[in-house]
This record gives sequence, C-alpha cells and structure tokens, in this order.
Amino acid sequence: MRVDGREPLQLRPIHIETNYLKHPEGSVLITVGDTKVICTASIEDRVPPFMRGEGKGWITAEYSMLPRATETRNIRESSKGKVSGRTMEIQRLIGRALRAVVDLSAIGEKTVWIDCDVIQADGGTRTASITGAFVAMTMALNALAEKKSFPRFPITDYLAATSVGILKNDLTVLDLNYAEDSKAHVDMNVVMTGNGEFVELQGTGEESTFSYAQLQDLLNAAQEGLTELFEQQKNALGEEITRKIDARRAK
Amino acid sequence: MRVDGREPLQLRPIHIETNYLKHPEGSVLITVGDTKVICTASIEDRVPPFMRGEGKGWITAEYSMLPRATETRNIRESSKGKVSGRTMEIQRLIGRALRAVVDLSAIGEKTVWIDCDVIQADGGTRTASITGAFVAMTMALNALAEKKSFPRFPITDYLAATSVGILKNDLTVLDLNYAEDSKAHVDMNVVMTGNGEFVELQGTGEESTFSYAQLQDLLNAAQEGLTELFEQQKNALGEEITRKIDARRAK
Amino acid sequence: MRVDGREPLQLRPIHIETNYLKHPEGSVLITVGDTKVICTASIEDRVPPFMRGEGKGWITAEYSMLPRATETRNIRESSKGKVSGRTMEIQRLIGRALRAVVDLSAIGEKTVWIDCDVIQADGGTRTASITGAFVAMTMALNALAEKKSFPRFPITDYLAATSVGILKNDLTVLDLNYAEDSKAHVDMNVVMTGNGEFVELQGTGEESTFSYAQLQDLLNAAQEGLTELFEQQKNALGEEITRKIDARRAK
Amino acid sequence: MRVDGREPLQLRPIHIETNYLKHPEGSVLITVGDTKVICTASIEDRVPPFMRGEGKGWITAEYSMLPRATETRNIRESSKGKVSGRTMEIQRLIGRALRAVVDLSAIGEKTVWIDCDVIQADGGTRTASITGAFVAMTMALNALAEKKSFPRFPITDYLAATSVGILKNDLTVLDLNYAEDSKAHVDMNVVMTGNGEFVELQGTGEESTFSYAQLQDLLNAAQEGLTELFEQQKNALGEEITRKIDARRAK
Amino acid sequence: MRVDGREPLQLRPIHIETNYLKHPEGSVLITVGDTKVICTASIEDRVPPFMRGEGKGWITAEYSMLPRATETRNIRESSKGKVSGRTMEIQRLIGRALRAVVDLSAIGEKTVWIDCDVIQADGGTRTASITGAFVAMTMALNALAEKKSFPRFPITDYLAATSVGILKNDLTVLDLNYAEDSKAHVDMNVVMTGNGEFVELQGTGEESTFSYAQLQDLLNAAQEGLTELFEQQKNALGEEITRKIDARRAK
Amino acid sequence: MRVDGREPLQLRPIHIETNYLKHPEGSVLITVGDTKVICTASIEDRVPPFMRGEGKGWITAEYSMLPRATETRNIRESSKGKVSGRTMEIQRLIGRALRAVVDLSAIGEKTVWIDCDVIQADGGTRTASITGAFVAMTMALNALAEKKSFPRFPITDYLAATSVGILKNDLTVLDLNYAEDSKAHVDMNVVMTGNGEFVELQGTGEESTFSYAQLQDLLNAAQEGLTELFEQQKNALGEEITRKIDARRAK
Repeated sequence: MRVDGREPLQLRPIHIETNYLKHPEGSVLITVGDTKVICTASIEDRVPPFMRGEGKGWITAEYSMLPRATETRNIRESSKGKVSGRTMEIQRLIGRALRAVVDLSAIGEKTVWIDCDVIQADGGTRTASITGAFVAMTMALNALAEKKSFPRFPITDYLAATSVGILKNDLTVLDLNYAEDSKAHVDMNVVMTGNGEFVELQGTGEESTFSYAQLQDLLNAAQEGLTELFEQQKNALGEEITRKIDARRAK
Repeated sequence: MRVDGREPLQLRPIHIETNYLKHPEGSVLITVGDTKVICTASIEDRVPPFMRGEGKGWITAEYSMLPRATETRNIRESSKGKVSGRTMEIQRLIGRALRAVVDLSAIGEKTVWIDCDVIQADGGTRTASITGAFVAMTMALNALAEKKSFPRFPITDYLAATSVGILKNDLTVLDLNYAEDSKAHVDMNVVMTGNGEFVELQGTGEESTFSYAQLQDLLNAAQEGLTELFEQQKNALGEEITRKIDARRAK
Repeated sequence: MRVDGREPLQLRPIHIETNYLKHPEGSVLITVGDTKVICTASIEDRVPPFMRGEGKGWITAEYSMLPRATETRNIRESSKGKVSGRTMEIQRLIGRALRAVVDLSAIGEKTVWIDCDVIQADGGTRTASITGAFVAMTMALNALAEKKSFPRFPITDYLAATSVGILKNDLTVLDLNYAEDSKAHVDMNVVMTGNGEFVELQGTGEESTFSYAQLQDLLNAAQEGLTELFEQQKNALGEEITRKIDARRAK
Repeated sequence: MRVDGREPLQLRPIHIETNYLKHPEGSVLITVGDTKVICTASIEDRVPPFMRGEGKGWITAEYSMLPRATETRNIRESSKGKVSGRTMEIQRLIGRALRAVVDLSAIGEKTVWIDCDVIQADGGTRTASITGAFVAMTMALNALAEKKSFPRFPITDYLAATSVGILKNDLTVLDLNYAEDSKAHVDMNVVMTGNGEFVELQGTGEESTFSYAQLQDLLNAAQEGLTELFEQQKNALGEEITRKIDARRAK
Repeated sequence: MRVDGREPLQLRPIHIETNYLKHPEGSVLITVGDTKVICTASIEDRVPPFMRGEGKGWITAEYSMLPRATETRNIRESSKGKVSGRTMEIQRLIGRALRAVVDLSAIGEKTVWIDCDVIQADGGTRTASITGAFVAMTMALNALAEKKSFPRFPITDYLAATSVGILKNDLTVLDLNYAEDSKAHVDMNVVMTGNGEFVELQGTGEESTFSYAQLQDLLNAAQEGLTELFEQQKNALGEEITRKIDARRAK
Repeated sequence: MRVDGREPLQLRPIHIETNYLKHPEGSVLITVGDTKVICTASIEDRVPPFMRGEGKGWITAEYSMLPRATETRNIRESSKGKVSGRTMEIQRLIGRALRAVVDLSAIGEKTVWIDCDVIQADGGTRTASITGAFVAMTMALNALAEKKSFPRFPITDYLAATSVGILKNDLTVLDLNYAEDSKAHVDMNVVMTGNGEFVELQGTGEESTFSYAQLQDLLNAAQEGLTELFEQQKNALGEEITRKIDARRAK
C-alpha cells in the first residue's frame, strides 16, 4: 500500500478553481493533493524577435516556487540572481507542451505568457502546472476569440500531464507525492492530448534503469490518470468552451 | 467621494486567514480590498554571521510579487537576475518594522525569515505585508515558545501598518488603493504598535510637498485605520495569544 | 553633552565648494563635519523611455562610497556585481527629493544625472548628498538656462536635508555623526523646501519606537538645522541665482 | 531517402579517439558524422556538500559549445554571464545518465567532473556527449582503480545514447543530423545500458504529437543504433577494461 | 639547460593546421609544443555601434580555455557568471594586435570575430592565439576578398607573437613553457609584424625588475623566434595568399 | 608644439597631498595636470586563500573612475553589474607593479589593499595611480612598521610610472594628456624603480607599429619624467621615510 493509503493507480484529489485572480486574462488555482499552483495566462500583443513577421503566435512559460512552498525554505532565485537548471527545464517543458495543442497561426502575432507559481509543493508540481496552465490558457484565448474574429478556434485538443513511477518495492504507481517521488527508482512524466497522443515523455532511472516491460506498465498507469484529468479540465472549462474544443478535435 | 465609494477615513474590507499553508511555521493570507498577500514565517536555527555569539535572534524579510499580480505583467526579478530598488526598500522596511516588537534576546540565536508574496496587487502591498507578517511571525514564535522554554514570551506588542495620502483635490484619505495611490500628491506609510507608538513613518511628496498641518491630518487618519487593524489581528491570533501579548505590553 | 562637544541642536561645520570638478555641468564638494561628498550634475539630452514624448524632464540620482570612506574598508559594489539595498534606497530618495523643487516641464526632455560620491563618511551622508546635490543641480540648470531660452527658471525653491534623532539617554539631537547614529534609538531624515514644506520624512525606531510628542521635538530640531543649511546654499549659489529662485518662490 | 543519403536506421560514421588530451584523467574526441565533442573526465578528491559523510562518490557534468561550432556564431555563455536553459538541461541529463552505471559506493568520496565541449555541431551533440563521456569516465576510473584498491570495479555496465525521430514525411529515422533535427515532427533521445535497459527516455512532439505505435517504432530504431554504439565503445576501451565491465554485468 | 632540453633561443615544435573546422570562415588548430589552440574567424556584416557610419571594419577577439586544458580543472567562466581579468586582458590584446595589420577601411563595415579556444595549455597560450588567429583571419578575409570586390587586399603584413623571459638562473630564453613561465623572473610578450616593427610589447618583472641591457637581450631573443613563426605562417597560408600580403607590404 | 604648450619632454605640474582622508592607513590625492586620483592604502590582517601559511604578505589594487571624471558621463560599473576589461587590466597592473618594491616576507601575512579612485581624468590615470599609490602604501606600511617590530623596513625602492607616446606628427612626447593620448600612434606606459630598473613596460601601436629606434626614444623620454616623479615622491614622503628607503636600496 501507498504512504497516503491510495491504490497504486489512484490520483490524489484534484480541484481546479478558475478566475482565481482579478488581473490576468486567464487564471487558475489547481490543487492536486497538497500541491497547489497558481497558473495565469497573459496575452501580449507581439511575438519574440525570432518569430516576427511570420504571422504566428507563441506560447512561453515561467515557473517558480514560493520560498516556503516546501518543507524547508528555499532561497529565492531572484536573491541568487539566477534561475536554476531545474526551473529552466520545467518552464521549457510547460511552454513546449502547451504549444502542441494551440493552432499558432490562428492567433496571429501574439504571445501567451504562462506563469506557474507553486504556493505549496508535495510532488508533481510540473505536471500540475501543465494541467492547470492548459485551463488558464484556454480561458484567456477563448476570451480573446470572443472579442477578435480569429479565423478559427485556436485550441485543437485537451492537454494534461501526470507522473508515474516505480517505487523501491517495484510497485508501479500513479501521481507520486513528494515522499514517494524522492525515493522512487524510476520517475516518468507523461504529457498527453485528449486524443491519447503523446506530447512529451520523460522517463528517468534515478541511479537505476527500467525495462521495456516496465515502460509499458508506466504508460498504462499514466493513461488511466490522464483520462480523469481531462474530465476535470472539462468541468472547469464549462460546456461552451468544451464544445468549441471538441469541434476542433473532430477535424 | 473616493473612486470606490469609501468614506475618506474608511479602510477597505480586511481578512486575515491563518495557517494558509501546510509547511511554514506560520502562514497567513491577508486580504485588504483587492490586495492579497501570502505571508509566511520560517524559523532557522542560526543567525547571520554579523550577529553570531550575541545570544540574540534576528528577523529578516523578503518581498515579491507574482508577475501577474498587477494590471500588466511584470518581468520576474529572477529572470532579470536582480532585485529592484523598490523591492529592496520594501523588504528592509518589513524586517526593520517587525524587529521593533520582538524581544530578540528572548528567542536566542534564531532567525525568523518572513516571506511576503503578493498574489494580487491593488495598492498598499507593503503595509498589508507588515500587518499580515506580524500575525504569521507571532504564530510561528508562539508555536516555538510552546515547545522551547523561552525565558519570556518574545512578542512585546501588536504591530500593523497602513497608508494615508492627500489626493489631487486635497482630500486626506486612509488606505489608498492603486488608482488613488498612483495619483496622490502625498503618500505616507505609518507603522505603529498597539500602544500607539510610531515604529516607522515614511511620508513623501510626489513632485509635491506637504505642510506641518497636513502632516497632522495624515497621522490622525492613520491612527484611525490602525485601531481597526489591531482588532483584526487580535481576532486572527485568537484569545490565548492575545492574552500573552497583552501580558508583555503591561510590563 | 554630545560626543564631539556640540549642543543638542547644533549642526557640524558646513562647507560647500562649488565648481569642484572640471568636466561636469555642475559640481560641488560638500563638507559636513568629517563627512565629505562630491556631488555632480550632468545634463543628458533625452529622458528615460517611460517619459518620452511628454515634453518634460527627469532627475535621477546615483550614490556611492569610496571603499575607504569608512573606518573599515567596504567591498566595492562593482566587485560584488550588485548594488546594495541601502544604496538603492538612498539614490531613490535623492532623486525623488530633488524632483520636488524642479519645474520639470520647464526644462523639456532632458535628464539631470546626479552623482553623489562619498569620499569620507562620518554619518549623514544621504542628507549631505541631498543638500550638496541641490547646489550642483541648480548651477547646472542655471548654466543651461542662460544658454537656452527656458520658458521660465526651472528651480522653484531651495531644498536641503538633515538628520535628527533620539539618543539612548533620550536626548533629541540634530545632525548625528556616525558614533551617534549607530547608537540612536530613533533616526529621522527630513527633507524640506525653503518655504518650510516637507518633501520627505523618514523616521525609524531602531528596535525601538517613538511617541507623537517625540516626533514633534524631532521636527522642531530639524527645522532649526535646515534654516542654517538654506543660508549655506544661498552663499554657495551666489546672489544672482538666489534672486532667480526667490522670484519663482514668490509665485 | 535522407538528406545525406543514409538509410532510415543507419548511424553516421562514428569515431572515438581516446587519450585525446594530456592533462585530464580521461579524455576522448568523439566524432559522429560532422559532430565532434571533446569529453574529459577529471577526478576531484571530495564530494559536494550535500553528500559529505555518506562514503559515496558523485558524477557531475558540464556542457558547452565553442562559439563557432555552429553555422552562425553563438555568443559565449561566459560573455552573457549566464548559462542557458538548454545547456543546463543537457548537463543535468549527462550527469544523471552516467550515474546510472557507476557503483558510487565503490569509489568513495570522489567527484568525477565530466566536461563535454562541442567543437563542431551537426545535430546529436547531447547523445554524442553521453556516449563519449562514458568512455572518458571509464578510463579515468579504471586508471584510479589500478592505483587505489577499490573494493570492486565501479563501472557496472556500458552506457550510450542516440537520437531517433519522425520526419515531416512520417519516416522514422535514427541519429538525426542538424538539418533533419530542425525539421522533425518528433524527436526522442534514448539513453540505454549494455543490457538493454532504459536509463533515460525523452520524447518530444515539436508542435506535434505521436502515437503509441510510433513510440514503439522509435524505440526499435534506437535499439538498433545503440547496439552499434556499444561495439564502438568496447573497441575504444580495449579488451582489458571491457572484460572488467563484463565481469560486473554478469553479477 | 632548459627543463625540456631545448636551447635557450629554440622554439618548441610548431604546427598550424588550417581549415580545422567546417563552419567558420577561417579556422586553424595551432600547436606550439603541448599548447593547442583552436582559432576561428567569423565575419559579421556590421560593426559595433561606436563605429557605425565610418565605412570601416572592426576586429574583436574572445579567448577561453577548456576547463581541463590545464593540469588541474578550472571552473568555467560561464558557471562563475563572469569573465576573469586575465581573460579580458588577453582578448583585448589579441584584438588590438590583429587590428595593426588590417586595412580596416578596405573591408567596409564588417566585424571579424576571432575566437581562440585553448584545448590544451602548456604556456604561451596568448602568443599562440595571436599567431594562429592571424592565419585564421587572413584566410577568412581572403575568401571574402575573392567574393567581394574589395578595393584592395586588406592584410598589410604578417603578424606573430612569442614570449621571452629571464629564468631564475638569469638565462634569457625564448618561448617559455608552463614550467618555465611560472618560475621566471621576467616575462615578456612581443607582437611583431613581418617587417620587424613592434605592435605590442609587454614586459613584466614578477616581484622583480629588469635592466635596459636585459631588455635588449629579450628583444633579440624574440626577434629570432618571430622569424621562424613568420615562415610557419607563410607555409600554412600557401603561396597565393603569401603573394598578396607581400604585394601590400611592398607599398 | 604640444596642445597645452608644453615641451615634448615636459611633465605636467604634479602635486601629491598626503593624509588626504581620515580613515585609511595611508591616503594621497595626486594631481598630474588635470588628472586627479585619490589613492588609499588599507591594511588587512590576512592574505588571500592561495597564499595562506607562506608567512608572506600580499598587495592588491582596485581602480575606478567617478562617473563624471570624464568629459561625458560614464555608467557606473556597479550599475552595469560588472567590471570592464580596461578596469581589470589597470588594477592588475597597479598591484603587480607595487609588489615589485615590497619585501613581502617582511610584512608577514597581511594584505595591503590599494584603492585608486579617479575623480578627474585627463589622460595618464593609470600611471598617476601607480605613482600616488606608492606613496600611500609606503606611508601605511611605515606607520605599521613603527608599531610592529617588522624584521626590516619593507619598502625596497621607489616606484613611479609615466606614459610616453608618438604623436601623429612623429613627435615623441612625455606624459600625454587625454587629447594627445586619444590621437597618438604609439602609447607606452613605463613603470620603473628609483634604481632605474624596469618593472613593467607596455607599449602598444594603436592600429600602428613602432621601430626599435622609436622604442629607444620612448624609453629615454620616460626616464626623464620618472626622475622628476621620484623627487616629488621623496618630497611627499618626507626625510625620515626617504632615509629608510634609501637604506634598503643601498643593500
């Protein structure tokens, strides 16, 4: 059995609170067990220099943790004067993942800035960030779509992420909390679309390795969790937006 | 009349939610109108080098805003690689203010790290930070006082802060929101103890000046607001802690 | 009695040497007791990006200390690669203070860069900087006014600063030197115009507090010192410039 | 057909030159097509602070490109004053991968510093770095093993890496060069041990996605290439070291 | 006798391999004994801001060492986040030296970026860099000269550099290796043109001094070595380019 | 004739004011024409890590310019967050030069920090810094020598520096001011001891070259100026210190 009493393939309780903040075009507080992340989407009316003139939009993401999101206090990256490798890796992942389900040509030369700020961490902060950021981004782009005559709805599918892993006792589990994650042999993050296609697969043996058979187990576990996450996203987004996404997926 | 319909000397609605986060020794979400700040207090079992061996504790504070706490997105200070002058000024102010009501000899060689993270900003973020941080710090030190036999309760008085200002139409107002603050002639932050003593007074004419008579008006306005803030702090802290503070004030 | 034999409300000897350097548009060596600051004013023919197109000028200030201005050597901020919070606080204060007595519309889109470099420090470096910088800036803008037909003389009043404080023995004193400042209970910097209006008031209890009655004592002490400082500034500026400022004050 | 005439599952020509430099404990110039990387291994006689006292060793890696390793000149990271997210991601990957095949307890409190410096880049620099670094590290640790009586040979298996991808025309290919990589739909890096276990799997849809069936194709392609890379490593390491590794694998 | 058996005025074996890399406009691997430097020349189609509009070109250089070019590993300057004083001194020297033999008006508003990356260091890395960079730069500019109708061939003379020094035993030696350099009393770098004119002379007593007579000995020794270096450069550049340079020298 | 009416081999007026500041162990304001530099010497009671345990002292130097020491305002290096190559080159030169005339074993494990802050610049700031710093350092070490029983007086000779150059009209001149320096063909800094030995020789053709004969002219010019500078240093140091240095030179 797992440290918090869950079944191996059971997600922690999820909650997605939309319109959490007043200023951003889209904002969400996503709760996955004790992990809590504020995800916001801000629209900027231009693209980075390397994309100018192509008539396409861009999605970029930043990720941070409050110093006391964790058990012991972390020094702020602003005080250290530099962003850690882990942070950079995560924010590159979030941006890349989201771009896979946005029709960038449909939004014109705009940048969507995604900010994921972890206010409480208990494992799975990067996957919660992706799952929450998808909702924030979709709400921001939907609001814009209602004001501007976009040639077509720009969100082409749902997008969510979860983690799976193999514990020391060889148990394959879904949605690891911090206690599990810090001791797992193998740790894998899976980002998937609503259609069951992979967007990103990052599996790592921690001073360890994993076989092809174990890979298959891990992917099955992930699939199970992602199915539930897509339902949560639909609930959070509401019927109208869900209908628009489904229309694009059908194409 | 004021832009949000308030009377000149009326505070915005205040709410202080304690134990907001799971990990920190003390944590608070303080809401002042649309301004929301997460204040946490973390205890570290040593003091900075310049204080070692004196047998006294230290209080230090950091302050930050989420990029989208504001109307338009701000670049993160971690991305810029340096902390702005405004941020430094605020975090120095918060730490200095809190140290005025802590009996540093009573806590031994410990550092209390205060983190104030603004998740939504609508004016008065530094004063809300001080008011909220006092509660988070008090709860953290009280918890420690219950475990360790401190020689005496270390909090010597209440501490809160508010802003006052003079608007373009010469109206003296209490607790300016962002719209008022950005256009005020004179802006003053007042940090005060429960006994009505000043800890910090920072008054600034914004390309403008103010007279001695106006100063007196501003201080009266501040006094009014602070009285209410102390009541809110007592409610948040609860009867038991309030009794301990009152016992120290009586000395 | 005070450590250097002064009366409580006695300033240290002041000297303002104008045209101290060859290159800057305005330059001053101000001596306040053993505190010596080189203040220069440089005119740049444009304003920062956030002010372009408004037809108004800007005043900005930088402050630094020679490494050996102090008792023990300080590491240069250029070697540390960042400017300290204290430095930032001081340079923001100097710039803000000076802007209160300049008619920014009268100078057009120009920036006045103020540099205050402390070559010897014995307390009160920030107030000496403001007092000296006012003279340097006025001389630079007057020289410009003589060449360009400004619509009106841009300096609207005198501006000086001093410090007051409450010593451990509860004595209220004017113009604290370093030995006094490092032990004072309460420390207050007052920036005032020639007309007796406040521009900036920064009072701080150092792990201590102060009452309303003490605040009044402090302000009276400051007023006394500032009256003498304005006389010194007039002497340094000379009759002709003094006449022009007085003409603007009369309006 | 591929841009350089290769079969879909054909590696580019590989060459591993050992003892390439005079000073390092282990050094290799690895050539994969037009990609050339100098990999060195340096032994330091202590571990990072977070590992002290555990009696175990550590492996850490740094990665860099000469400014003109690429088609157009890149600004040096030392000139920019910070290391890019891409560089951090790669150096974290290299270190993590190598640690999976080293018995860290066997080497005691030592750090192996791996430096991978790309002198010419044509795609696949991170996988070439891992493949080359394994050889440099093994030679350095073997040399040390001969001098110190390690309790057991510390390398537990071979380790190599390659890339696979899906081109725009849906062709699954092995070992992408830069021209292919910059246009591929899906890009996957696979790090594997000599026993065919995964150490790291990083698959990314570039503004695109991939199915479970495509994942299987990609993994088969990678397996093919890795088999050849292990042969090259054995040739470079020579019979004696190969025998020692094989002995550990047998356990 | 010298530590490696050379005569006092004998250079170490030199080799200059041209077209060492695929991408740069000019590239060289220069070997001087055990010192090995990759020198590349990249052409950029604009000049730095301070030179725009003058119709002249610019040469700028960067220098770096691989972390393990030396006996013990050096921390990368990119990790430290800043370039050392030694590195800056060397790259300023290289750029300045090369500019002395280029007719900057002849190349128009272009920048030649020189990169000298030391992959193995055994003393004399800065002089080897200059000698190698001259060849890389000349090949890059010659290639450009063949494509663009430059008004005249832009290289006006050969340029090479060597070191000379006085050892502890008062022996004057040419081309110091690291063992000699680290113990020499006096160390001098001489940069000279093919016509025997000085471009740069940097002589330093290392906690020591040198007389006028010793200076003359040092310069004679340098002259001897430089004569051989010019021959090596001619061989590397080939007859055709040599003829073009000689034509310009004749003027 | 020269731009300021001097003879080719005539120095500008020199003045060395000792004990210029109150806090440093040694301090000097050196004036060379319109160039003014504050040189201070601070004694620290330890040496840098790389020298600990050798029983020897160390001399290190830092150099800076006030932003408005020059015709147009320079951005502070503290604001830029890094020290320029030019500054690093100069401070390395100053430290190295001074170490040549200090018997480091005689002072034990102490560091002398030299700070040269240019308050007004008109060419020759690095040579004025060396000449002035020698006096400040000597006074600081002499004061220490009087308190501590040093085994012997640690200053072994005088040390001064000057610049020489060749103007566009081929005139060889001594002590170039800024107007001359910015247009000279050849620029050479010479650091020499009282005994006429070279400590440092840095000659540079600015997009130009110089012959052996010209080198001899330059060195003769430098010799002339240095003779006068040593006289000025003796006057500034006074008879007693001069006698001590002369005693050490005699050995």
